[in-house]
Amino acid sequence: MTQSIKALVFDVYGTLFDVHAVKAKADELYPEHGADISQVWRQKQLEYSFLRQLNGQYVPFSQVTRDALRYALLQLKLHVTEENIAALMEAYLELSHYEEVEAVLHEMSGKQLAVFSNGSHDMLDSLIEQSGLGSLFDHIISVDDIKQYKPTPAAYMHALNTLGLKREEVLFMSSNGWDITGAKSFGFRTAWINRSGLPVEELNLDPDSIYDDLNGLLEWK
Amino acid sequence: MTQSIKALVFDVYGTLFDVHAVKAKADELYPEHGADISQVWRQKQLEYSFLRQLNGQYVPFSQVTRDALRYALLQLKLHVTEENIAALMEAYLELSHYEEVEAVLHEMSGKQLAVFSNGSHDMLDSLIEQSGLGSLFDHIISVDDIKQYKPTPAAYMHALNTLGLKREEVLFMSSNGWDITGAKSFGFRTAWINRSGLPVEELNLDPDSIYDDLNGLLEWK
Repeated sequence: MTQSIKALVFDVYGTLFDVHAVKAKADELYPEHGADISQVWRQKQLEYSFLRQLNGQYVPFSQVTRDALRYALLQLKLHVTEENIAALMEAYLELSHYEEVEAVLHEMSGKQLAVFSNGSHDMLDSLIEQSGLGSLFDHIISVDDIKQYKPTPAAYMHALNTLGLKREEVLFMSSNGWDITGAKSFGFRTAWINRSGLPVEELNLDPDSIYDDLNGLLEWK
Repeated sequence: MTQSIKALVFDVYGTLFDVHAVKAKADELYPEHGADISQVWRQKQLEYSFLRQLNGQYVPFSQVTRDALRYALLQLKLHVTEENIAALMEAYLELSHYEEVEAVLHEMSGKQLAVFSNGSHDMLDSLIEQSGLGSLFDHIISVDDIKQYKPTPAAYMHALNTLGLKREEVLFMSSNGWDITGAKSFGFRTAWINRSGLPVEELNLDPDSIYDDLNGLLEWK
């Protein structure tokens, strides 16, 4: 079983990097509103990526993220300035990775390692580079290359084509339930990194494995 | 302008009927948790309909609604029983319509009137019937007839085909921002019933009109 896995593919936001690290910057700009901004921003970012996919009106994830931020500030009735939006978007490029990530990636370097994200390269490449993790990955795969967001089958197919493997040779990790169900539906093996202790999604597409953090992957070494 | 509109098409949940009316039943079964249940249930209901559309794994909205309820109860760490799920699903069939709805529909009866919903007929037909509004509508249109959820273009096309009109002859009303942007993208004229005072969605698809409730429609008489 373990032997048949040739590549480990990682979602980025929420899986390798802590999205809510923008909370600190948000709290600095809008005291006491950081948690709310972070939460609404993330929720609208996901919703807008789903809606643009359903509408067939793709724009890069950096635009989706900026649009979602503007909405979040307006919904919370906070003062919107271009300076604050720029500062918060900048924070998105400097997210911290979770503490176990680097050690686990080093341990698993016997397999192909890749990131696969809805993030466009303008967001993703800077983030990976500043994290110091870049040299550990064989591929930085963005849906922006095909302009179809996860969780469409087309998006996972793009990752598979990049890897040049069979789908059952790929183990896909994400902390996002919707991403795990999409990957499972496509035919990847899946490990849900359930950092927040959430229930399994009620979509009849249960993950193959569930771990509290990436350390769980070491059993696949 | 007004003359060119031949049909008024209404979304159902949140637009004609108050979805959060399930809060009372939820509060009865789970004291002090009614608001949270109602909020998470609705959010997951939308998310699951989007995800199943993106995955290509349609099930009827009644199943999506039941799955979302189960997830909501689990996420909130509440005791899940089949009896409670049945009671809450039953409440969904007995939602109240907003107070202005009946009078506005009577005033607008010179045009074709239709409801158009993601709800499957097992949910929708019962709800409309018990509301006493059924005789006011020329069509009860459900996406279940084509198994494609709003906001896909295919869903709005199904409504248009049922009406037998040109898209610019249709005025579509919804309280849901994502539904208004979908309808606008398709080519309907749109009136957003912004009951909660939310910002316009940042999707570059602004509604043609915005009203606090359905009384705003009277200017189209």
